[in-house]
Amino acid sequence: MQNEDRSAEDRGALIEPRIPKGFRDFLPEKEAERLSIVRKLQSVFERFGFLPIDTPVLEFAEVLLGKGGGETDKEVYRFTDHGGRDVAMRFDLTVPFARFMAAHLDEVGLPFRRWHAAKVWRGENTQRGRYREFMQVDFDIVGTDSASADLEILLLMRESLAALGMRAFTIRYAHRGVFNACLARLGLEGRSVEVLRTIDKQRKVGTEKTRELLAGIAGPAAASEILEFIRVEETPAATLQKLSGLVGGGVEGIARLSQVASALDRLGIGGTFVLDPSITRGLDYYTGIVFESFLGDLPDIGSVCSGGRYNDLASLYTRQRLPGVGASIGLDRLMAAMEELGLAGGSSARASVLVLFLDDSLVGVYHEIAQNLRAAGIAAEVYPEKKKLAQQFAYAEKKGIPLAVVCGAQEAAAGTVTLKNLKTRESFEGLSPADLPGRARELIR
Amino acid sequence: MQNEDRSAEDRGALIEPRIPKGFRDFLPEKEAERLSIVRKLQSVFERFGFLPIDTPVLEFAEVLLGKGGGETDKEVYRFTDHGGRDVAMRFDLTVPFARFMAAHLDEVGLPFRRWHAAKVWRGENTQRGRYREFMQVDFDIVGTDSASADLEILLLMRESLAALGMRAFTIRYAHRGVFNACLARLGLEGRSVEVLRTIDKQRKVGTEKTRELLAGIAGPAAASEILEFIRVEETPAATLQKLSGLVGGGVEGIARLSQVASALDRLGIGGTFVLDPSITRGLDYYTGIVFESFLGDLPDIGSVCSGGRYNDLASLYTRQRLPGVGASIGLDRLMAAMEELGLAGGSSARASVLVLFLDDSLVGVYHEIAQNLRAAGIAAEVYPEKKKLAQQFAYAEKKGIPLAVVCGAQEAAAGTVTLKNLKTRESFEGLSPADLPGRARELIR
Repeated sequence: MQNEDRSAEDRGALIEPRIPKGFRDFLPEKEAERLSIVRKLQSVFERFGFLPIDTPVLEFAEVLLGKGGGETDKEVYRFTDHGGRDVAMRFDLTVPFARFMAAHLDEVGLPFRRWHAAKVWRGENTQRGRYREFMQVDFDIVGTDSASADLEILLLMRESLAALGMRAFTIRYAHRGVFNACLARLGLEGRSVEVLRTIDKQRKVGTEKTRELLAGIAGPAAASEILEFIRVEETPAATLQKLSGLVGGGVEGIARLSQVASALDRLGIGGTFVLDPSITRGLDYYTGIVFESFLGDLPDIGSVCSGGRYNDLASLYTRQRLPGVGASIGLDRLMAAMEELGLAGGSSARASVLVLFLDDSLVGVYHEIAQNLRAAGIAAEVYPEKKKLAQQFAYAEKKGIPLAVVCGAQEAAAGTVTLKNLKTRESFEGLSPADLPGRARELIR
Repeated sequence: MQNEDRSAEDRGALIEPRIPKGFRDFLPEKEAERLSIVRKLQSVFERFGFLPIDTPVLEFAEVLLGKGGGETDKEVYRFTDHGGRDVAMRFDLTVPFARFMAAHLDEVGLPFRRWHAAKVWRGENTQRGRYREFMQVDFDIVGTDSASADLEILLLMRESLAALGMRAFTIRYAHRGVFNACLARLGLEGRSVEVLRTIDKQRKVGTEKTRELLAGIAGPAAASEILEFIRVEETPAATLQKLSGLVGGGVEGIARLSQVASALDRLGIGGTFVLDPSITRGLDYYTGIVFESFLGDLPDIGSVCSGGRYNDLASLYTRQRLPGVGASIGLDRLMAAMEELGLAGGSSARASVLVLFLDDSLVGVYHEIAQNLRAAGIAAEVYPEKKKLAQQFAYAEKKGIPLAVVCGAQEAAAGTVTLKNLKTRESFEGLSPADLPGRARELIR
């Protein structure tokens, strides 16, 4: 509770600077890394002609939760605002995108490619190691249900992960229509949830346990057929041939998978992709191709980028049918993966040069030195006041600043400075303003 | 209310894709511009060694509103979450930064320079043309109350505005301590709010009206002295001399202003800055230097970047005294200003080349062409399906894509493409894959 006469002197009255569970501060190193990742992704998206959008954090609850019910609702941060409006914080970037498309269809036109990197909020159980505030990066093509768009999202996933330095990853894809045809043939449409959940666990529990569980649901013969269906063959062509045999070549989805597989092959990047019929991506949203990413060196971390094709994005808000395909990167899981893979930490935003502060009367000189370095593209900061040199050096060390410029009254009078390499303790004395940036640049390299 | 069996066919049941008043969607052009502005600012901050941080959007209400009362509280989006926590959405970036510093002081060390670009929310009256969701960009140096830090924030303001292409702007600065000394000499400490508000309106109502209002508050003699105090003289030195005469040279703040003014002069950028004693920046927060920016070509738009020095950032949360100085950019006002000045719109994220889609069997070829262009640094997209050429050209025009690549079955067989300049309607036929990127780059220039 607020207390107007509380003062900082009165220790008991201090407010504890804590934040709610599931929320986090980003300290400079982590935040610099997050900015760097988003920037790299942005650059990939731009190369593909994807356009950025943004939507409000708060939307009308009816707009976000239109579909009603579901587990998500309980996790949504929802409240009544000053004006009595029933509002909620976005819990993903897909629903706001659907609303956005219905509202701005004429302005943006079709086909429309967008990316959106933004925070979303879910009041999930944090004991599962989840955050309540986290960042997603989504990219979608809407207004077409072509194979070309499916392929493009796969390419973009690959380039995104590659741009972040990821190696040894695979992207596994399948088609929900083909899977549904398999279930229909076995008379299992009504039990698809159970079958999907069982298949989803296969990677963890192994084939024999899965067979047992499937047999419990559908009988041993159907279990065998499902296991046959989801097995990855030597080549995409062999997998396709098997799927054709199991569900019939006329099934919509077989031809689509075949187009995608051969285009990936033609592009010489087939090796990154695996046609894997066990990929299903949940139930009620996707209708065509579905895909997940797997990091070879981190098999247990799960997919950092996944998605698929949907029939109609914005049916809640408009009668215009908007088929599309897209994927979502979970930035927090991705950052955890990069840290484990040693790909993190290269993007610290620290300055390269610290201008030491020796004399109050030289404040203008110090800032002039720093400005000249900056003009030469070298990040520089001025220690902001006269303190013991040991303290200024300790500051540079803590921040990871590799070089220092020293300029006392005598040097200032002579118009020169000394540059120090803080790592090797080498000094370069008598440098003129014109020589400083070049010498600094040499040492940074 | 939700209705599970509502379908898109049933027009009456569609949800209107509207957003709450005071909130906005950012369409691609505007969002690309916002991203570009933040990126340019980031690059300036990095050159100065400022580090990025981030904090949660939701904080405990007690932490954000600790000071109690005040007009802000009524505008804060505050609610009780699932776990019964009293939480609120941040309404600025200063209070979360104070909480951040108290929580992470040992980790970040002092002095600490940070920048933070993020959305904040206030349920303000939108009739004043204000948004309820808007973006701020803050930068501060804490842990020092040196003149060097004051100077550095002024330099950073200047470089930030310059990096965005702003010209003809001035940054006006003053010192709250000097102003308070003036009021004290006149025995007006108790009426400082009235005096400040009257001075704040001077730019609008003119000197004579201001004199009348001040005389009503403090009598004609004091009114004359205040007007004398706030008048800008020919040079900073003359203004300083006058201030010394009026409040006494020993007043803390006179020496500080003098140091800052002479350093700006030494840096050769004194012309951007005006020592203007009428700058006050409200009442209860700032204790030292204060500053505002003015755009010469848009005198009525108000300050797009302002701030000042404060005595103690985080006294609500820690007994460690944290003096600092910083400024805040109102990104929405800045973007409005840039639009009016014709500085907006140069940062569209559109692709440079559209690969036309003529033949379903060539989908792999089209993506190969696009990938080759991207590898050469040229943003390219593939039209995602076979449609009439007129429709594909119309798409390119709407998106502002300047070039198209045409490749039909014959050309694909010959391994060549045609590049079209959509503006001049020139065509370049028979280009090999190796020649395409170079020719495209020439035409983009």
